[in-house]
Amino acid sequence: MQIALIQDKIVPAEKLEPVYLDRGIFFGDGVYEVVRSYDGKIFALEDHLQRFARSLAAIDINGVDIDQIRAKVHEAFDAAGIANAKIYFHITRGSALREHAYDPDLKPNFFLTVTEQTDDTKEKTKGIEVSTYPDWRWRRCDIKSLNLLANVLARQDAGSKGCSEAILVDEAGLITEGSHSAFFAVFGRGLQTAPLTANILPSITRKFVIEAARNIGLEVREKSLTPQQSRSADELFIAVTTEDIVPVVRFDDQVIGDGKPGKYTKLLIQEFRSFTE
Amino acid sequence: MQIALIQDKIVPAEKLEPVYLDRGIFFGDGVYEVVRSYDGKIFALEDHLQRFARSLAAIDINGVDIDQIRAKVHEAFDAAGIANAKIYFHITRGSALREHAYDPDLKPNFFLTVTEQTDDTKEKTKGIEVSTYPDWRWRRCDIKSLNLLANVLARQDAGSKGCSEAILVDEAGLITEGSHSAFFAVFGRGLQTAPLTANILPSITRKFVIEAARNIGLEVREKSLTPQQSRSADELFIAVTTEDIVPVVRFDDQVIGDGKPGKYTKLLIQEFRSFTE
Repeated sequence: MQIALIQDKIVPAEKLEPVYLDRGIFFGDGVYEVVRSYDGKIFALEDHLQRFARSLAAIDINGVDIDQIRAKVHEAFDAAGIANAKIYFHITRGSALREHAYDPDLKPNFFLTVTEQTDDTKEKTKGIEVSTYPDWRWRRCDIKSLNLLANVLARQDAGSKGCSEAILVDEAGLITEGSHSAFFAVFGRGLQTAPLTANILPSITRKFVIEAARNIGLEVREKSLTPQQSRSADELFIAVTTEDIVPVVRFDDQVIGDGKPGKYTKLLIQEFRSFTE
Repeated sequence: MQIALIQDKIVPAEKLEPVYLDRGIFFGDGVYEVVRSYDGKIFALEDHLQRFARSLAAIDINGVDIDQIRAKVHEAFDAAGIANAKIYFHITRGSALREHAYDPDLKPNFFLTVTEQTDDTKEKTKGIEVSTYPDWRWRRCDIKSLNLLANVLARQDAGSKGCSEAILVDEAGLITEGSHSAFFAVFGRGLQTAPLTANILPSITRKFVIEAARNIGLEVREKSLTPQQSRSADELFIAVTTEDIVPVVRFDDQVIGDGKPGKYTKLLIQEFRSFTE
């Protein structure tokens, strides 16, 4: 490269910091995880690290030592000293001149943040409203990659409608998941959610929700829902690492149940809490 | 944020540079363009700026002054002093703590590089080999966004097979385009390429190829091709800003024509050159 221009300033090639040539920004060529702690204890870190390793392998980023990642997570968490924290981290393929094809020997870049994470008690006790949006994401959402523009556009659309989450509907008219959450419906004593396919993130929280559901005697059905089916559910909720289970009391223009969090959803929140203690 | 960890180093929140919080890296929340110059003259800059403005609008990045972008392109190009240059630039939504939803008042980040671009004469005169790959990209490839991981994986797969480009095949079994190029087939005196839909980038080079084709008396047909149809074409080529027209002499395991660049492809390369002079 001969020259770069950053914001309004010309920067000669030799003075350009590697962060500006991160393949994460040129291509979203990286993968990430979000974990959280409850009262000083990181929840399900091993599950997240395993998924992270799978994501790295799926996009051919090799040579990352997961033990080192675990150590960094603990180091930063300890240094931050926040009991209820959200820990975000990503690895990108590395920094290089922009070319689609990559050198397999590039040195990956690591980045992590620790921020405060408090449960939004109002969302938990009152429930949230959600709206539907087309699922424009790529076909490999089983990989937790940095290609999230479709999620951003969906989430922003929901916000513009006064909703807290967008529920994504694919070209076949089936709900895949939320823009940053898994989606669940309760019918009678049954809990329904989409099966894990190439276009569904294998959500860690989903796994614990299913375990919690079995513990409280719900029958679990992994089958995709349509928006119409969701509107007629007895209860709806989303599940996401940062907030675990959040009741949904409105789906587009349809009030769910009596407009308050459902009884099984509340039982699941309680049961989930027992995992995090 | 309380703390970040970059590579192996803990960085307190207040010392973290905004580039590390670029939504471009967290979400691929930005759009880009690539233009090139031929012998000191930037080609089709206005077309690229128009498309850039459309991409920005499509993802709701507002308040970018295209006149300023044009001025920056010229400023950097002039400063670099490279006659045959590739100019890459992107704008992201800005830097902020990582949340899917965004503040519409964020200040966008601009980044540009100028690098040397020489025509790979060997590719032009001998032609390239291409291989097919599933089109895993998102559903809005009409927007030139930074969500390019599917393109990267496709291009890398092609390289591992000794090929120079990956031709993407969608779930319906139709070719959309290349990982970073448009794709064309010649049958008799007809030129065929996919029509512009939500999943095809409105390629500037494609536009000029179609103009060139009409100039030399080819009939242009905008209709999707299957891989099987492509294997039986008289000629194949790709079109991309950085190299304009590049003949394709092998498609997966099928030699095209006599394994040399076709006569109409060569005529189109000549005709295209007349646009850039």
